[in-house]
Amino acid sequence: MSLDESNLTDAVIGRMEGCESPRLRQIMTSLIRHLHDFAREVELTEDEWFEGIRFLTATGRMCDDRRQEFILLSDTLGLSMLVDAINHRHRAGATDTTVFGPFFVEGAPALPHWANVSEGIPGTPCFVSGTVRDTGGRPIAGAVIDVWQTDGVEGLYDVQRREGGMYGRGRITTDAQGRYAFRTVQPVSYPIPDDGPVGKMLRKMGRHPWRPAHIHARIAHPAHETLTTHIFVKGDAYLASDAVFGVKDSLVVDFVQHPPGPTPDGGRSELRFSTAQYDFALAPA
Amino acid sequence: MSLDESNLTDAVIGRMEGCESPRLRQIMTSLIRHLHDFAREVELTEDEWFEGIRFLTATGRMCDDRRQEFILLSDTLGLSMLVDAINHRHRAGATDTTVFGPFFVEGAPALPHWANVSEGIPGTPCFVSGTVRDTGGRPIAGAVIDVWQTDGVEGLYDVQRREGGMYGRGRITTDAQGRYAFRTVQPVSYPIPDDGPVGKMLRKMGRHPWRPAHIHARIAHPAHETLTTHIFVKGDAYLASDAVFGVKDSLVVDFVQHPPGPTPDGGRSELRFSTAQYDFALAPA
Ligand SMILES: [Cu+2]
Ligand SMILES: [Fe+3]
Ligand SMILES: [Fe+3]
Repeated sequence: MSLDESNLTDAVIGRMEGCESPRLRQIMTSLIRHLHDFAREVELTEDEWFEGIRFLTATGRMCDDRRQEFILLSDTLGLSMLVDAINHRHRAGATDTTVFGPFFVEGAPALPHWANVSEGIPGTPCFVSGTVRDTGGRPIAGAVIDVWQTDGVEGLYDVQRREGGMYGRGRITTDAQGRYAFRTVQPVSYPIPDDGPVGKMLRKMGRHPWRPAHIHARIAHPAHETLTTHIFVKGDAYLASDAVFGVKDSLVVDFVQHPPGPTPDGGRSELRFSTAQYDFALAPA
Repeated sequence: MSLDESNLTDAVIGRMEGCESPRLRQIMTSLIRHLHDFAREVELTEDEWFEGIRFLTATGRMCDDRRQEFILLSDTLGLSMLVDAINHRHRAGATDTTVFGPFFVEGAPALPHWANVSEGIPGTPCFVSGTVRDTGGRPIAGAVIDVWQTDGVEGLYDVQRREGGMYGRGRITTDAQGRYAFRTVQPVSYPIPDDGPVGKMLRKMGRHPWRPAHIHARIAHPAHETLTTHIFVKGDAYLASDAVFGVKDSLVVDFVQHPPGPTPDGGRSELRFSTAQYDFALAPA
């Protein structure tokens, strides 16, 4: 009954004879095999194993209502984008997907077109508009778009601040022509929270924690597959080295810069402002 | 610059160009590859991914001074025993190693021979003795043996109780003839703590949480490799299905049962008692 390197993996997997879920059994079998192969391949030392235990423990203890360090870990190891890719194959004509990220918050206010999702928040005023269509180019009315983003100067999400209420979030519904429009501040590039175990890991790996500037969008409609994506700001210094590997060329958008003057919402800006236009396409449900 | 299933793994690994530790780079390269291969192989869904995030978070939040849920996870997935096997090859003649486990506590009292490490604790009185030798059979004087175990009825370690002080722990030093001896209660089989995420995982996998009865020992001496092992009680119902895969035939010991009468420490027991004899062999440092 003694177990050694040669028979231990099979013994662990064999212990699942009583497992009632074929899918769980499949997942755990694969997980155990790859985990053991990893340990054998690098000949993990006991100190390194314990460092791993400590790392995972610290990562768990960093998690609370406002911080999800395991999602950051998954994001920075490319796992989140891989899962995204695996689950969104064969979507010809639909907008590319990207990471959900850890900063979404339920309960953003429903807003009319051209409402300002960043009222009173510092940054360059920015007007974003476009349409939501199906993969045949037909407008989708009543699609619900959740957007979320940082402020326009420090690159912080509302939930990253100790004080102040919600900002940079809104829910906009497309009109009969499939159109959406909102006002905001132009997002800036930001480091993912790097004061925890994941930040430490990135430094040891010789990596920076920066993400190129982007606006998150999640678009839902009963007849279509929910789309989770970003629009990225063209020209950003971190487009080629996003800390979470989320950039896709098709999601990089020209944020056109304008001098003070009339704005797309029919108003006027005393400050320089930018405009961005993006049409989303949803895959069928 | 768009990343997909085919090039994402290499992109993540390639981001380590600036990594200053070749060993860390090797470990992370292997980890990322096996992690991604796992996700691709099972085609992990987004819901399953999030279930995984939640599981790891709950596991982290279960950890405190008295509970190490990530070590339990590693133990129950066979990783701990695999790391043990990888790091203790080529030890011909030395005692087999097994898992360290999560219940060791620093600072157990140094005790003379035949001291009772389980004073006042319920269970069958038990007298354990033997020698510590090198792989050539020569006695090792001054080897320091830490032992730790559960009580003899409920199968709980001291740290698992809300009340009461330390028990079932002691540090014994071998004499000039390499001998050690201590009194205790005979340990009983116990379930690993299964009221947390790991227990839930075991149930879903169709597994039980039981470990066969054992006494932990860690033996240190400057000229020898530190030995971390158990002695298991022969005849235990869980020897063939240890929840953490720690049993090795060579570590299963006959705990001989005796009627009330004279005991090996020169005293006398009014209760039935048991004796166990085990000789440890340490590999050179
Ligand atoms: Cu693998
Ligand atoms: Fe973001
Ligand atoms: Fe134990």
